[in-house]
Amino acid sequence: SKYAYVRNFELPDPLLPGTFMVLRLDGHSFHRFSDEHEFTKPNDARALALMDHAAMDLMEQYPDIVLAFGESDEFSFLIRKSASLYNRRASKIVTTLTSLFTSSYVFRWAAYFPDAPLKYPPSFDGRLVLYPNAREIRDYFSWRQTDTHINNLYNTAFWALVQQGGESTTQAHTTLKGTVSKQKHEILFARFQVNYNTLDPRFRKGSTLVREEISEEPSDRDNGGTEIGALVPGPDTPPAPKMRTRAKPRTQIAVLHCDIIKDEFWDARPEILSG
Amino acid sequence: SKYAYVRNFELPDPLLPGTFMVLRLDGHSFHRFSDEHEFTKPNDARALALMDHAAMDLMEQYPDIVLAFGESDEFSFLIRKSASLYNRRASKIVTTLTSLFTSSYVFRWAAYFPDAPLKYPPSFDGRLVLYPNAREIRDYFSWRQTDTHINNLYNTAFWALVQQGGESTTQAHTTLKGTVSKQKHEILFARFQVNYNTLDPRFRKGSTLVREEISEEPSDRDNGGTEIGALVPGPDTPPAPKMRTRAKPRTQIAVLHCDIIKDEFWDARPEILSG
Amino acid sequence: SKYAYVRNFELPDPLLPGTFMVLRLDGHSFHRFSDEHEFTKPNDARALALMDHAAMDLMEQYPDIVLAFGESDEFSFLIRKSASLYNRRASKIVTTLTSLFTSSYVFRWAAYFPDAPLKYPPSFDGRLVLYPNAREIRDYFSWRQTDTHINNLYNTAFWALVQQGGESTTQAHTTLKGTVSKQKHEILFARFQVNYNTLDPRFRKGSTLVREEISEEPSDRDNGGTEIGALVPGPDTPPAPKMRTRAKPRTQIAVLHCDIIKDEFWDARPEILSG
Amino acid sequence: SKYAYVRNFELPDPLLPGTFMVLRLDGHSFHRFSDEHEFTKPNDARALALMDHAAMDLMEQYPDIVLAFGESDEFSFLIRKSASLYNRRASKIVTTLTSLFTSSYVFRWAAYFPDAPLKYPPSFDGRLVLYPNAREIRDYFSWRQTDTHINNLYNTAFWALVQQGGESTTQAHTTLKGTVSKQKHEILFARFQVNYNTLDPRFRKGSTLVREEISEEPSDRDNGGTEIGALVPGPDTPPAPKMRTRAKPRTQIAVLHCDIIKDEFWDARPEILSG
Ligand SMILES: Nc1nc2c(ncn2[C@H]2C[C@H](O)[C@@H](COP(=O)(O)OP(=O)(O)OP(=O)(O)O)O2)c(=O)[nH]1
Ligand SMILES: Nc1nc2c(ncn2[C@H]2C[C@H](O)[C@@H](COP(=O)(O)OP(=O)(O)OP(=O)(O)O)O2)c(=O)[nH]1
Ligand SMILES: Nc1nc2c(ncn2[C@H]2C[C@H](O)[C@@H](COP(=O)(O)OP(=O)(O)OP(=O)(O)O)O2)c(=O)[nH]1
Ligand SMILES: Nc1nc2c(ncn2[C@H]2C[C@H](O)[C@@H](COP(=O)(O)OP(=O)(O)OP(=O)(O)O)O2)c(=O)[nH]1
Ligand SMILES: O=P(O)(O)OP(=O)(O)OP(=O)(O)O
Ligand SMILES: O=P(O)(O)OP(=O)(O)OP(=O)(O)O
Ligand SMILES: O=P(O)(O)OP(=O)(O)OP(=O)(O)O
Ligand SMILES: O=P(O)(O)OP(=O)(O)OP(=O)(O)O
Ligand SMILES: [Mg+2]
Ligand SMILES: [Mg+2]
Ligand SMILES: [Mg+2]
Ligand SMILES: [Mg+2]
Ligand SMILES: [Mg+2]
Ligand SMILES: [Mg+2]
Ligand SMILES: [Mg+2]
Ligand SMILES: [Mg+2]
Ligand SMILES: [Mg+2]
Ligand SMILES: [Mg+2]
Ligand SMILES: [Mg+2]
Ligand SMILES: [Mg+2]
Repeated sequence: SKYAYVRNFELPDPLLPGTFMVLRLDGHSFHRFSDEHEFTKPNDARALALMDHAAMDLMEQYPDIVLAFGESDEFSFLIRKSASLYNRRASKIVTTLTSLFTSSYVFRWAAYFPDAPLKYPPSFDGRLVLYPNAREIRDYFSWRQTDTHINNLYNTAFWALVQQGGESTTQAHTTLKGTVSKQKHEILFARFQVNYNTLDPRFRKGSTLVREEISEEPSDRDNGGTEIGALVPGPDTPPAPKMRTRAKPRTQIAVLHCDIIKDEFWDARPEILSG
Repeated sequence: SKYAYVRNFELPDPLLPGTFMVLRLDGHSFHRFSDEHEFTKPNDARALALMDHAAMDLMEQYPDIVLAFGESDEFSFLIRKSASLYNRRASKIVTTLTSLFTSSYVFRWAAYFPDAPLKYPPSFDGRLVLYPNAREIRDYFSWRQTDTHINNLYNTAFWALVQQGGESTTQAHTTLKGTVSKQKHEILFARFQVNYNTLDPRFRKGSTLVREEISEEPSDRDNGGTEIGALVPGPDTPPAPKMRTRAKPRTQIAVLHCDIIKDEFWDARPEILSG
Repeated sequence: SKYAYVRNFELPDPLLPGTFMVLRLDGHSFHRFSDEHEFTKPNDARALALMDHAAMDLMEQYPDIVLAFGESDEFSFLIRKSASLYNRRASKIVTTLTSLFTSSYVFRWAAYFPDAPLKYPPSFDGRLVLYPNAREIRDYFSWRQTDTHINNLYNTAFWALVQQGGESTTQAHTTLKGTVSKQKHEILFARFQVNYNTLDPRFRKGSTLVREEISEEPSDRDNGGTEIGALVPGPDTPPAPKMRTRAKPRTQIAVLHCDIIKDEFWDARPEILSG
Repeated sequence: SKYAYVRNFELPDPLLPGTFMVLRLDGHSFHRFSDEHEFTKPNDARALALMDHAAMDLMEQYPDIVLAFGESDEFSFLIRKSASLYNRRASKIVTTLTSLFTSSYVFRWAAYFPDAPLKYPPSFDGRLVLYPNAREIRDYFSWRQTDTHINNLYNTAFWALVQQGGESTTQAHTTLKGTVSKQKHEILFARFQVNYNTLDPRFRKGSTLVREEISEEPSDRDNGGTEIGALVPGPDTPPAPKMRTRAKPRTQIAVLHCDIIKDEFWDARPEILSG
């Protein structure tokens, strides 16, 4: 029609080829959202597992995602550098993936919060960042996991002081002000008999999602590995085990709560940074 | 931390000031989604009303949206040119709004499809397009409504031939091939006694959402206007009437199914293109 | 060849259609360049006329340029909003035009500085800025001419104090510190018998280049208008009168030194902002 | 002033950090320019040496350029990936460098074409392309040098057929149509006693500019290396030897006409791709 010229204002937005992409999603105003839905403090295991599940759904649908890492109300996804997903159109990628994550989060809410119906629709922002080098990808994920550690140690000490120590939130802030890591460990141990290092690794290390090959017979790695979390993180109504049947049928997505700063994780999975 | 330098790879993406923005969302693979959820053909009133509701939620939360238009699996939103929403950061705007629309769609699904549970999470793509001039905004919305008309007339004739005329889909395509508008009207009228122009305006004109001032006493315009659709489009469990209480408390969002190509609509609402 | 894939890294950079473009060039390190080539202070008429000539060359070659304004070591060019120059590719436009201006500046140097050979090749930066509305174009040029006025008044007073008043540069700065416009006029008049408003309009108003229609017989406007500067600004070896012979043969480029902040200039030339 | 808001329309354009940049310049309409200035066919040694000199000037002023390659009317510059030149602002880099190259070309014209004054100012376009990986940089320069080879072999055969063989240009095109490399070599050798491989390497290999360390005493590499071309390419009035005195005083720029497709060149200069 004579109006179709308006399409000419849609400008191309291709991403540089041969470059790693990281998509980071973050819950919009989750301070309020976690309050309204009475998330457990400092960590709500249901909320975190729901995030993991939404991330897993994304990885199921998008084989170009080779790694994901989540903490708090955020999730980061590594898209391999050779990906030709949506012809590398920036807007298409970032909106479609952010939309699917959101959709999955709402879709699966009731399975994780059976007693707390959603009061209003939550949303997430999304951003796509390009990284030319593998070193930067390593540092990106180190940055997020360091953040997990710092925030969680602080929050754990803070809420122990408030919930168990009877301090007001203002007092707790004052108590922690200026303390270094070691001192927070000591407060937890001395005053509350909490050994921080034995707390749920999910809280201390965040969630790392990788694709694992499925062996014909159950392997040691799949079964007993302490690093490997529940492959299916659902609480009451666990969805059927995820078997990616599209590109490479013999992989499944595993949720880990392990260190991803040191080399070990990466050395064991060279494919993450290679393609 | 020493890893924080990775933030430097997040590049700014501000949008040109003083320029109209149009956000268009479109359902991802809704051909399949509408099949799997057995949408009525050619138009599913529930699906369309659900879209309208999600769009209304977006307009409630984002006062910078001054107009929206929806049809099929898509919705377009006009953001006023002076908006400083998220500092006009492109990625932030397009992802957050697409996410909220998606979230609302899933959140409200059960109210519109009480007997058809969601089988999997639907998603939407989103794109933001800049337009410097009011003329182009007029033409943009004319483009979408012309598309609504052309598609709906075709689909109405097509499914009449199939569902009532007993033709196969291949036959129906052949029957319609090369026909102009007038001939499709005639087929509908001669063979199926359908006067196209009396079909539900929702299907023929799409949905147009505008902000209307609320008068103290019920006005003629709010009550009897044939142009004005349900202010609250819910079917079974209608949510409470929407009262925007933020910026200008005395407006509410109205869903219309009227012509937006001719001047009348715009002349009556100069504020849409002015700010 | 097998290497040609590297072209895929050249990403498109189209500019928004229907939008005004302003190209601004600015001399790179002209503080040093003007020193080394002993430009007259505060204004070197030769240097300014050379800039004008380079700008005129650009307008001759690029009919999409409808207006230019220059002062000091900079020049701004307005490209009409409907221009399809180089398919509106940003990089192509900004580099080619900056290159031609530079080339012309060096090419014509000797005509304006017959006694001062170029010591080293000067360069210019260039930037392209989009403006959606005519109002902003007006304000853009008002911004530049206001800058001309403020800088020139200051510099004129400053160098009068130094060259005629015998002050050191430090003293002159101190003398002028905190003074408003009116006080600078007074210093010039009281101490140096200089009526600022009678100084060469080239220095006070900058150079404005427009396309003027050529009438068959010499018109009043072409001949006697005080506003109209030399059509051909060369000093010793004037180039032949410029007759644009491409798109519209009956126009030539005029160099004016007039006010472009008030409406009069624009009202007399509606074509500048119309197309 | 109240007009300064127009600066807000200047949007940031930072380039991705940690990424190689290649700037490629190409003469604007040099088909015509070479005709008007009667360049020798197929290669004009003066024109090529002038290009080299302008490229050298660029490398002198911009230490972040670690390699350059030129042929015909074009030059490519590799900017090291860690460069923070102009804060990696795309427009600033591409315009300033294109401008300086142009300026130098015009400034030095007379030294290379003493008998052929410039008839009009030549211009160049410039584009900046990002490459994330060293492999792509290798392939980029292989792409350009392969282009040099293919074009030069064709042009050499073509002009031999015309100038020495008495063919019309149409005939020469027909003679060469469909021939492969080997056949062109044979035509040159059999009909014109020209051994293509002994022609001036400048024509066959293009010009490669690198920074070389200056040893205290004249080294073998600087003196006798067949790979190393004239350090100073001027014909009649050779400018003084170039000594970069800024960052690392003991390097100078060398102009080579050697193979840059094979590993040897790169293995001998690991610093080019390292930083
Ligand atoms: N109680 C509780 N709160 C959580 C949990 N995970 C995240 N949150 C809350 C704590 C923070 O207030 C918020 C995440 O911080 P952000 O910096 O993302 O802030 P917020 O989402 O409010 O604002 P934003 O829209 O992202 O700028 O989510 C949880 O497991 N338990
Ligand atoms: N039966 C039925 N189908 C609908 C209705 N509204 C939309 N659809 C379907 C028909 C189309 O196949 C599809 C919309 O067309 P699109 O061009 O957006 O294609 P689709 O979403 O499949 O692909 P995409 O991911 O957008 O490229 O949605 C409806 O009311 N009833
Ligand atoms: N003496 C004299 N100097 C002039 C004239 N026109 C411009 N200049 C000089 C004065 C300023 O130092 C300089 C222009 O100021 P800019 O802000 O553009 O600074 P500059 O070019 O040095 O640095 P840049 O590379 O643009 O950041 O050029 C003139 O007519 N006479
Ligand atoms: N005779 C002669 N011509 C040359 C020499 N080097 C370059 N040229 C001419 C031959 C080509 O026509 C032209 C370079 O080809 P281009 O593809 O860059 O075309 P041109 O610059 O005309 O158009 P453009 O503005 O770059 O699209 O320059 C030379 O050494 N001798
Ligand atoms: O979301 P972050 O942590 O990157 O930081 P922010 O302060 O929320 O900033 P932004 O507006 O970029 O989300
Ligand atoms: O979505 P549209 O109608 O703009 O067109 P498309 O063919 O789906 O293309 P795109 O990949 O841009 O969604
Ligand atoms: O050139 P301007 O006047 O816009 O200002 P600047 O301080 O020189 O800044 P830039 O680095 O953008 O040229
Ligand atoms: O200059 P090139 O060789 O990249 O190719 P082109 O055909 O001249 O195209 P462009 O318009 O990009 O200069
Ligand atoms: Mg944030
Ligand atoms: Mg958040
Ligand atoms: Mg967060
Ligand atoms: Mg689409
Ligand atoms: Mg769709
Ligand atoms: Mg659609
Ligand atoms: Mg500047
Ligand atoms: Mg300057
Ligand atoms: Mg300046
Ligand atoms: Mg080209
Ligand atoms: Mg060329
Ligand atoms: Mg070329």
